[in-house]
Amino acid sequence: MAAGIQYIIRLHMQREVVPFRQLVELVDNLGGDIIALDLVRAEDEQTVRDLTVVMPSPDHLIQLEDALEQLPGTSIENVSDRTFLMHLGGKIEIHPRIQVKTRADLSHVYTPNVARVVEAIAQDPSKAFQLTMKRNTVAIVTDGTAILGLGHLGPKAALPVMEGKSVLFKWLGQVDAVPICLDTTDTNEIIDTVVRIAPAFGGINLEDIAAPRCFEIEEALTKKLDIPVFHDDQHGTAIVILAGLLNAARVVGKELKDLRVVVSGIGAAGTAATDLLLEAGVTDIVGYDREGPLLRTREYPHRPSWNRYAARTNPHLRDGSLHDLMKGADVFIGVSTGNLLTVEDVEAMAPDPILFVMANPDPEIQPELVQAKVRVLATGRSDYPNQINNVLCFPGLFRGLLDSRARSITTRMKLKAAEAIASVVRPEELSAEYIIPSVFNKEVALRVAQAVSRAAEEEGVARRATSSLH
Amino acid sequence: MAAGIQYIIRLHMQREVVPFRQLVELVDNLGGDIIALDLVRAEDEQTVRDLTVVMPSPDHLIQLEDALEQLPGTSIENVSDRTFLMHLGGKIEIHPRIQVKTRADLSHVYTPNVARVVEAIAQDPSKAFQLTMKRNTVAIVTDGTAILGLGHLGPKAALPVMEGKSVLFKWLGQVDAVPICLDTTDTNEIIDTVVRIAPAFGGINLEDIAAPRCFEIEEALTKKLDIPVFHDDQHGTAIVILAGLLNAARVVGKELKDLRVVVSGIGAAGTAATDLLLEAGVTDIVGYDREGPLLRTREYPHRPSWNRYAARTNPHLRDGSLHDLMKGADVFIGVSTGNLLTVEDVEAMAPDPILFVMANPDPEIQPELVQAKVRVLATGRSDYPNQINNVLCFPGLFRGLLDSRARSITTRMKLKAAEAIASVVRPEELSAEYIIPSVFNKEVALRVAQAVSRAAEEEGVARRATSSLH
Repeated sequence: MAAGIQYIIRLHMQREVVPFRQLVELVDNLGGDIIALDLVRAEDEQTVRDLTVVMPSPDHLIQLEDALEQLPGTSIENVSDRTFLMHLGGKIEIHPRIQVKTRADLSHVYTPNVARVVEAIAQDPSKAFQLTMKRNTVAIVTDGTAILGLGHLGPKAALPVMEGKSVLFKWLGQVDAVPICLDTTDTNEIIDTVVRIAPAFGGINLEDIAAPRCFEIEEALTKKLDIPVFHDDQHGTAIVILAGLLNAARVVGKELKDLRVVVSGIGAAGTAATDLLLEAGVTDIVGYDREGPLLRTREYPHRPSWNRYAARTNPHLRDGSLHDLMKGADVFIGVSTGNLLTVEDVEAMAPDPILFVMANPDPEIQPELVQAKVRVLATGRSDYPNQINNVLCFPGLFRGLLDSRARSITTRMKLKAAEAIASVVRPEELSAEYIIPSVFNKEVALRVAQAVSRAAEEEGVARRATSSLH
Repeated sequence: MAAGIQYIIRLHMQREVVPFRQLVELVDNLGGDIIALDLVRAEDEQTVRDLTVVMPSPDHLIQLEDALEQLPGTSIENVSDRTFLMHLGGKIEIHPRIQVKTRADLSHVYTPNVARVVEAIAQDPSKAFQLTMKRNTVAIVTDGTAILGLGHLGPKAALPVMEGKSVLFKWLGQVDAVPICLDTTDTNEIIDTVVRIAPAFGGINLEDIAAPRCFEIEEALTKKLDIPVFHDDQHGTAIVILAGLLNAARVVGKELKDLRVVVSGIGAAGTAATDLLLEAGVTDIVGYDREGPLLRTREYPHRPSWNRYAARTNPHLRDGSLHDLMKGADVFIGVSTGNLLTVEDVEAMAPDPILFVMANPDPEIQPELVQAKVRVLATGRSDYPNQINNVLCFPGLFRGLLDSRARSITTRMKLKAAEAIASVVRPEELSAEYIIPSVFNKEVALRVAQAVSRAAEEEGVARRATSSLH
């Protein structure tokens, strides 16, 4: 299927003059694809049909609409955008897990008998994990300051992303996830608000909150709450990057400890990815951002997180341009901006280069330019092999956290999650084009959940033993 | 069905000696009822059966267990409490409204195409009502300070009630309701928190928040938010009381403006009920609480809300004991404490007395004591006729608020909701035993929703016209 936007155009077509061939040509000439032409109803003189097309852009759609109106015997009733159609009325709803049919049912589910459940939890609040939604529900919390690659668009605009995430949570992890979109961007207000709404939830997924405040928020909440707090843009990305790198290193026959790694974009994701790679055994990582490579010999007064980053990276104090840094590097990990790298940069890398170019929507270099020059190439996109996608992590991770009633998330739990994702690609399947499983592979969430709940138990942060289940 | 607690006892019973008759006698002698005796499985030597019983108390269950173990050839495998069984794992879950089956589905629901929906809402935030959960979702917010009649038991203990409410919201009003249980009892913190989480919701249902802070919280939130805020313990109760009183007055042939009313318990519900009755045309209301009748000639420095209450009630400055106040009264509305009234109090009322005794769990007077002495009797319980239950109001009310995208709730909307509930009882059905419809009557929510959305439009607080729909 061509990249583009899917539309559904409802056409009235006179029976006598059915210009199917012209219709196909029109769409084709505008660079679009016809997905379907479904009959809605047949009348005496005309048929009503839904033409589903993928067009390269909204402009192309307008050109198509104009051209369709010119076709003999054809008129447009309505044009719908498939994406907007799927969002109409929202993407999630609340369902009762029990049925209320009789007065007795009502008395169990609500007053008067619910009072006994209330009293049981008042006496032992940990029973909320057995008797309420807390067992299986997480909050997806955002302030709308870093929505996808779009920036600060506010809490209401963030809602479709949070709902989409909730859909994925349920579909892949059987986790109930409630979007909480905050009408504040103040760090302390966000922290206070999440603490106050926490009682009903078994975990907190922070989402699309801008750096550097996301670091402080996650740290404070982790200290204040007895449920796990996970900033997905940081750690979800880091875990999936590590999963990909574990398999990429196997493909090229190198060990993590021997890799020279350049990380471009030292925001939320770049920082967390670096930390997790260090924990996994990588030793030589250089962080690169607008001011060049981060060096512990420099001061970053406006970005305290860069000072901390520089203190634990770049052991050989490599300096210079991005091109200088790329010379002899084994791995480039980009979570920065599109078209930052040149072909020459990539050509300067060590043999069997590994390139993770994950900038959104355009990668740090167009894959077509270097596909023949690198050994392993991964992007954040679904239209190339090796998609580094957080969807591979968060549903299974929270499934494991909820199953074990974890109090928090440890580094070991993240490492085990990354290994679990990598392990889904079997040794005999592993290749440069297949280092990371598909987001549609349901085994991923299962393995991640098992690895995380087992690690939670080993780390002493579990409140429920799940080891016997696996 | 006898009042009591329902249990399921799994029994192993030897085939040769099946003591069914003894079993029935045992339960009967202990004041219980057998609901079912279901076969779970049949083995060679024995059958396994689930005995479902209602017992008057947990003590009676223990006696029954002991007795069952004494029966020849019978042993207990397990005893489950039906209420707790129905709560296992929580009562609600999140469901996707759309299916993700293909990569194209995923691209519409999540990245990359969700970005276009994000941008559409960023440009016009009111589109959140069309394209997100905001259209159909309310928050049920509590601080756990006044849970049912049980008092301050904390946010986790409140969760089963909020989930039960969410089940009823969906079942009767097709409203998605998210429990938000707050870990704070500070008025300003509650206000701030609700303001911050409001963007994703189309309405706020405040629940089980103690008086007098509930008044301040509702007032502040109503000012700060552009979505309706409704404290159900106040206004839901008031609306259903008014609905009942409208029909009760018809039964006795009196007009609201001529009624002498005593309201006992001037907390959240008593205050709101009084306000709504005054708006409906009642003129002579005396509020009664621990310190006697509220009088504008007295000062209540510790309860400022009582000063305001006294200022607008008790026009004839009636004073004295509860018995004095009851002399000649047409209506007694009790939202106070059990067994407050005597038979003599009721006998002192005007002809055709109307008694709404709604204290929880024991009414202000046992109905059996006065059923023959009053004309209309209503309680908050399901085991007597005329149950005054908030379930009759909130699902339809919020359905109407969401349908009309109301900015707020006006007095007229509440009056119309009360009239809608009362109207479900047809004139030819109306009797002293049937002034209020059953909570299982699905027409109630429909009528309330229509009345509320129409009133929202008339009052100018609707953001969407629904009148054409009705």
